[in-house]
Amino acid sequence: MHTYGKLDRKELEVEFSRIVAFSDGVFAIAITLLVLSFEVPGSGAQLEQGLEKQLPDLLAFVLSFAVLARVWVFHHRLFGALDQFDGRLIALNFLYLAFIILVPFTSDLIGEYGNERIAAIIYAVNMGVVGLVGAVMLEYAFRAELVRPALLERRFYYVGPPAWVLPVAFFGSIPVAFLDVQAAEVMWLIVFVLGGLLSSALARRPASD
Amino acid sequence: MHTYGKLDRKELEVEFSRIVAFSDGVFAIAITLLVLSFEVPGSGAQLEQGLEKQLPDLLAFVLSFAVLARVWVFHHRLFGALDQFDGRLIALNFLYLAFIILVPFTSDLIGEYGNERIAAIIYAVNMGVVGLVGAVMLEYAFRAELVRPALLERRFYYVGPPAWVLPVAFFGSIPVAFLDVQAAEVMWLIVFVLGGLLSSALARRPASD
Amino acid sequence: MHTYGKLDRKELEVEFSRIVAFSDGVFAIAITLLVLSFEVPGSGAQLEQGLEKQLPDLLAFVLSFAVLARVWVFHHRLFGALDQFDGRLIALNFLYLAFIILVPFTSDLIGEYGNERIAAIIYAVNMGVVGLVGAVMLEYAFRAELVRPALLERRFYYVGPPAWVLPVAFFGSIPVAFLDVQAAEVMWLIVFVLGGLLSSALARRPASD
Amino acid sequence: MHTYGKLDRKELEVEFSRIVAFSDGVFAIAITLLVLSFEVPGSGAQLEQGLEKQLPDLLAFVLSFAVLARVWVFHHRLFGALDQFDGRLIALNFLYLAFIILVPFTSDLIGEYGNERIAAIIYAVNMGVVGLVGAVMLEYAFRAELVRPALLERRFYYVGPPAWVLPVAFFGSIPVAFLDVQAAEVMWLIVFVLGGLLSSALARRPASD
Repeated sequence: MHTYGKLDRKELEVEFSRIVAFSDGVFAIAITLLVLSFEVPGSGAQLEQGLEKQLPDLLAFVLSFAVLARVWVFHHRLFGALDQFDGRLIALNFLYLAFIILVPFTSDLIGEYGNERIAAIIYAVNMGVVGLVGAVMLEYAFRAELVRPALLERRFYYVGPPAWVLPVAFFGSIPVAFLDVQAAEVMWLIVFVLGGLLSSALARRPASD
Repeated sequence: MHTYGKLDRKELEVEFSRIVAFSDGVFAIAITLLVLSFEVPGSGAQLEQGLEKQLPDLLAFVLSFAVLARVWVFHHRLFGALDQFDGRLIALNFLYLAFIILVPFTSDLIGEYGNERIAAIIYAVNMGVVGLVGAVMLEYAFRAELVRPALLERRFYYVGPPAWVLPVAFFGSIPVAFLDVQAAEVMWLIVFVLGGLLSSALARRPASD
Repeated sequence: MHTYGKLDRKELEVEFSRIVAFSDGVFAIAITLLVLSFEVPGSGAQLEQGLEKQLPDLLAFVLSFAVLARVWVFHHRLFGALDQFDGRLIALNFLYLAFIILVPFTSDLIGEYGNERIAAIIYAVNMGVVGLVGAVMLEYAFRAELVRPALLERRFYYVGPPAWVLPVAFFGSIPVAFLDVQAAEVMWLIVFVLGGLLSSALARRPASD
Repeated sequence: MHTYGKLDRKELEVEFSRIVAFSDGVFAIAITLLVLSFEVPGSGAQLEQGLEKQLPDLLAFVLSFAVLARVWVFHHRLFGALDQFDGRLIALNFLYLAFIILVPFTSDLIGEYGNERIAAIIYAVNMGVVGLVGAVMLEYAFRAELVRPALLERRFYYVGPPAWVLPVAFFGSIPVAFLDVQAAEVMWLIVFVLGGLLSSALARRPASD
């Protein structure tokens, strides 16, 4: 798939915007399919009990929605920073999207089996890979100088450390899950919030330059 | 996620339109997933009886489609009025979308369990929060002066009271549901129609200025 | 929802294209959800027999895909002809989309119950209404002079009779279905093909003016 | 549906981009629906065993995602090369999309029944037709001179042989499947990788001209 040379964004506005639109489509569908993890209780069941059983699904929904929203913002900023694109970036972007697509499944899995180690690890791997490929994509965009020249020197503040919060948090939770599954899940939440604060703090700085 | 300063819409046309396109994608998918509440009766069942049982699903579909259509028009007008956007607006928009995504589930729920108080309340909360976050997003856009300057003084007529019809109608129906579930559901319809008339009446006025 | 005055397309490029993009999103999702009518046979079943049972689903898929494709082309041409839009057109467009959204369900229904009168009638009503609202939308766009001035006098050749093929074919098949369900279904195919030829013939004429 | 004369892309930017956007929507939805082939094991089942049973689904997901990604890139390049479009191209594009839409079903089928000849053949036919229609669409675009003039003479290098890798690989695997189903499936992988290398090699050449 490395069949493009470096292509200028302005010359190929339609092509560039197709990649972005396709990615947004996948994001929008994957995030909306999260709703499928909720099930209307069967007609024989007691409604309230059936709904109570879905509280873990609601927690999984909130977490996965929040992570995907942040990942979308990250993707949004990355592609907003690009001046050019090439085949390698498109290939990385597809790898990224493949793991985005899996989220409705792995999210449903922790909603149903939140206490099971294997479910927590699958979810952590899924989200960790999303974060990792995102960070690699960002690194690649800077190294291959696909981003707007003005941004090249603001790399650290712009998207540096925050890009690594997600993979570190989720991969870091895997050994924790071997000790205690709930602890790993709490870790996701804590690091997610801390990461949000770190991200905001760093992002605000260059704005005040 | 508050990582943007105020960003000008024209300077960042692609970025702005991505937010809008992503939101539209979520709206379009959520509204289309409403169809999943209909089930083709199983091969053993009597077809006509199986279809008759889905009449409440059809009512739920009509109501939810109508509400989502109006909510989309509201969102459409709000983003059409924007001159700028910032991270807080994006965060609010994601909160908004999270509750849009839940509609196919809560709509299916009232289709199956329209006589149950708990189902009606869950639906009312879902739609009420959609309306509330929409109204807050609108207020914020005006206060933070993200809208086009020409619109700032036409705030009341432009989108003021109509923005509050939805949350008032749906949150207001919750105490009613404790007395009588059907009454709450009738209330949704009445207020929805009245709200439509109010909205039209106010909207027509500034046009004749 | 009649809250817009006449709005010029060029002045409000983003708003206009959002309506189109939203409609396209709904079309794309509805047409893709047609795949959900196919079911992978359960693990206990004989695979070949399970697949053979889905041949009617395949026919329903082909028909529904072809109709939706034509309807999309119609919608595409209509919106391509517009110079302006107003709230009434948006409301009609939503009504249109509501029936587009139902197609995956009604298509699945005739795939499963193609020999049942009630299923054929539901499908015919669904497609008939899609055709009818489309034709009304077209008429309205011409009467309210929302189309490009140059097209106003070419109304008959441009989209006149072909717009009525779909509603006439599908509503006309309903009385036929009371006599013979299969005959009604054959009628869909015949009229669909004839309609295609008529449409091509008329469309080619003004091109040679 | 052959109701368009040749239309210039720049004159009808909105119309052209709608075709592209609609296609991208269908691609994005079809590729995301691949996730539906994974099932969260039922609550009574042993989780790990239930997940192990889904390893073939994962292989099917990887293969189908990779093929669809490549097909999207192909479509992307083809439409990026167009200067004009006509009704015949739109009709071909719809035929193309019809088979894209079927992929989530046929992919699920080989995930569940990878050892069954009939499943492998259905998948191979589906992907083969996608490849074939793609190649025909490309040929047509060049013959009808819908592509940018500058590209007309670079036809061979630009998209010639790589366009035929997919249909040859998948149709070629059908007789192989009659001898040995696994061999046919291995063939998909080998030819897919070789095709990727061939495609890259050829694509790089004109870039260095």
